Amino acid sequence: MAEDKKFVEAITSMDVDFAQWYTDVVKKAELMGYSSVKGCMIFKPAGYAIWENIKAELDKRFKETGVENVYMPMFIPESLLQREKDHVEGFAPEVAWVTYGGLNPLQERMCVRPTSETLFCDFYKDEIQSYRDLPKVYNQWCSVVRWEKETRPFLRSREFLWQEGHTAHATAEEAEARTQQMLNLYADFCEDFLAIPVVRGRKTDKEKFAGAEATYTIEALMHDGKALQSGTSHNFGDGFAKAFGIQYTDKDNKLKYVHQTSWGMTTRLIGALIMVHGDDSGLVLPPRVAPVQVDIIPVMQKKAGVLEKAAEVKEKLIKAGLRVKVDDSDKNPGWKFSEQEMRGIPVRIEMGPRDIEANQAVIVRRDTREKTVVSIDELDVKVKEILDTMQVEMLERARKHRDTHTYVATDYEEFKQTVANKPGFVKAMWCGNEECENKIKEDTTATSRCMPFNQEKLSDVCVCCGKPATKMVYWGKAY
Amino acid sequence: MAEDKKFVEAITSMDVDFAQWYTDVVKKAELMGYSSVKGCMIFKPAGYAIWENIKAELDKRFKETGVENVYMPMFIPESLLQREKDHVEGFAPEVAWVTYGGLNPLQERMCVRPTSETLFCDFYKDEIQSYRDLPKVYNQWCSVVRWEKETRPFLRSREFLWQEGHTAHATAEEAEARTQQMLNLYADFCEDFLAIPVVRGRKTDKEKFAGAEATYTIEALMHDGKALQSGTSHNFGDGFAKAFGIQYTDKDNKLKYVHQTSWGMTTRLIGALIMVHGDDSGLVLPPRVAPVQVDIIPVMQKKAGVLEKAAEVKEKLIKAGLRVKVDDSDKNPGWKFSEQEMRGIPVRIEMGPRDIEANQAVIVRRDTREKTVVSIDELDVKVKEILDTMQVEMLERARKHRDTHTYVATDYEEFKQTVANKPGFVKAMWCGNEECENKIKEDTTATSRCMPFNQEKLSDVCVCCGKPATKMVYWGKAY
Repeated sequence: MAEDKKFVEAITSMDVDFAQWYTDVVKKAELMGYSSVKGCMIFKPAGYAIWENIKAELDKRFKETGVENVYMPMFIPESLLQREKDHVEGFAPEVAWVTYGGLNPLQERMCVRPTSETLFCDFYKDEIQSYRDLPKVYNQWCSVVRWEKETRPFLRSREFLWQEGHTAHATAEEAEARTQQMLNLYADFCEDFLAIPVVRGRKTDKEKFAGAEATYTIEALMHDGKALQSGTSHNFGDGFAKAFGIQYTDKDNKLKYVHQTSWGMTTRLIGALIMVHGDDSGLVLPPRVAPVQVDIIPVMQKKAGVLEKAAEVKEKLIKAGLRVKVDDSDKNPGWKFSEQEMRGIPVRIEMGPRDIEANQAVIVRRDTREKTVVSIDELDVKVKEILDTMQVEMLERARKHRDTHTYVATDYEEFKQTVANKPGFVKAMWCGNEECENKIKEDTTATSRCMPFNQEKLSDVCVCCGKPATKMVYWGKAY
Repeated sequence: MAEDKKFVEAITSMDVDFAQWYTDVVKKAELMGYSSVKGCMIFKPAGYAIWENIKAELDKRFKETGVENVYMPMFIPESLLQREKDHVEGFAPEVAWVTYGGLNPLQERMCVRPTSETLFCDFYKDEIQSYRDLPKVYNQWCSVVRWEKETRPFLRSREFLWQEGHTAHATAEEAEARTQQMLNLYADFCEDFLAIPVVRGRKTDKEKFAGAEATYTIEALMHDGKALQSGTSHNFGDGFAKAFGIQYTDKDNKLKYVHQTSWGMTTRLIGALIMVHGDDSGLVLPPRVAPVQVDIIPVMQKKAGVLEKAAEVKEKLIKAGLRVKVDDSDKNPGWKFSEQEMRGIPVRIEMGPRDIEANQAVIVRRDTREKTVVSIDELDVKVKEILDTMQVEMLERARKHRDTHTYVATDYEEFKQTVANKPGFVKAMWCGNEECENKIKEDTTATSRCMPFNQEKLSDVCVCCGKPATKMVYWGKAY
């Protein structure tokens, strides 16, 4: 059968060719498809459903902190994009330009938003008059466009989905507090929900966002030892407020500039899920984010009572709050097992006539393949226990991988050798000078990932130039 | 106080100037804002929250019928848009064209999607090979762009939010069944959730979607007697399949074309909510779609115990599954009442020190202003009862308005007089000829809204030309 054939060819092993393994998983787990629009991708149902779960959970967490959702236009007039100098320099070279509306050339061309700071500023300048109008804590869910030359599914594409929060505050302190609050929310979300441990820290000036005073980041380590920037939060100070004239009358009746922040997470998190948890059988989804958590696979399903029992178990598990499907297609069980593994469904339940007669079923964990035989009466309780355990252990396993792939280098030779031979993070001291960052990038292709909040003093001097060190930095090759 | 001032000026009365009343409500209920991108609007929190509720409910209903969500690129290469002749003729004059990516001109220009039939077809042609791959029942939530000359908040703007379902089926019968299923789902949704009664029917060929064999529509009547097309569902037959080469191998091993449908609902539903239910005090939201259902307004809130009791009641109502806020701002209660009315929050609860002493509170319905004094112990039960009643009565009231503004005309003089003097629907017989539609539009500005599923025989002849009639049609002026 044509449909079954796709599971005959095994996917590339991750140790043989990680990049090919990644592409194979994306394709065979049916997460995305290529479109005839170069550099743009299609989110297929299995991929989009992961994003829907990420979105629902993040949105709930945002709203608990007072965030309100809005929607701004997708176009930015060129003059608006140019208002803040650093910002336009950062983005103008990589935007898509709309020059015609219908049959007529536009008087002023517009870009498709690469990010919406300028639109929010333009909106806030009219919306904010008094201290009573503050804070504004708005967010939008949308897609953005950046005209990238090299693209990779989920990690880098010309259009991607994200959320972008944009806030305005009365004081610098409030803005800083919100910037850090959101960074910590992102980090907690990655760890609790995606089972992805992250390093929290600040970007160097070289790596910060165009127009920001400070950019905070969470950095995750993929299975191949490369870093993935997984969420960022920016404090703009009053730079944009001054460029756009966003002022309010304070309680003391004085006119003041607002302080602003922005923060975003994107569909590249799906790439992180694949590369942190996947294995040679395909995707492995942490239970909390998995669109389907339980795949019930009947064995000898044509025997009387098997499909009925499977349907009954499904109802029972749905009542227990789980996301469940029964695979009653006409493929053989072996195919179904491979398919469930490829798609990363956290557990499967195998049940055939003899199991049913004995009032039992077999639960198989996707990550460890551990099998548990349980009474059908206890299935709901047991499956929940196993999913909870799996969620915790997946985070622990990823953390262990991260920690055993985090190295320390105190001199430059050691640093270069480590980057060259040991995929992972390298912790090393830095003088604070951009020239050393540039040299390191040139010599090793590693970049500064962040200056972690948890600083350690590994030595007194910069690993590169030997001058006095000011910061401990995580370095690494990055996606 | 500046903040309170906005409620000093009353809004325009709907009977004096309906268009101005509409704009006033949109602005003062803070549903939207104008942007510096001409023809594009900003969804403010109160407006976007309504869309979030519409989206959540529709999405749930979609998924119950087997719909899966996906996301396609926002760009369409010009050659792809041109593949289906009628479709490109319908849309090409009103799209926005991207001609530059970064600093470089594109080899082929792309439009920002005005609708995504062509992208889905391009995707399906590779995705569908066998009868086993069918049906595909995909949907996406996104924004689309149409370069309109005249725009109005929610009703017509250059960018709007919507969902677009795109399905592919093995047979013509299945495609027709899905087209009608979604139209009925839309109609039920409008009636149950938005309390907006609709006429279900089919569009004439003149009014159908570019490229469709048949377009079904639901038509709602606004307070001013104008019609609003509120959702459409299209059967494409195999026209797109032939243009794009979407074929599958059937069980009989023959190569066949798929049959396709598409269906969409947009943010103009928010315009419908305003114009069906609003009154001279502002918006009136049906309880099921209202982002906030209950506004607790403390009276003499500085007195000991008042805010505490309000908070306690809030918690109790939230536990009962309601969406509740307490307005503890420093405005006076009169302002707060006006604000709650302007925003259309379905009920408010007034409670002051004397009420609390008597263990009671006053519930005021937004639509009828009916006041009910109830024991605080029974508040949760009573508020739920009142909200349920309100939801039902709002639909009944809108239906009565619709029915009393639906007229019959059996000769052309009567038809013209009715359209000129009696805002509403006019039911009249039609010969099926586009020339009569054109003449009616020219003479009266009314258009054919739909050929309702519930046909009546009002006379034997076309109201316009007097030739034998084939259909009874709803006519009306439309937004």
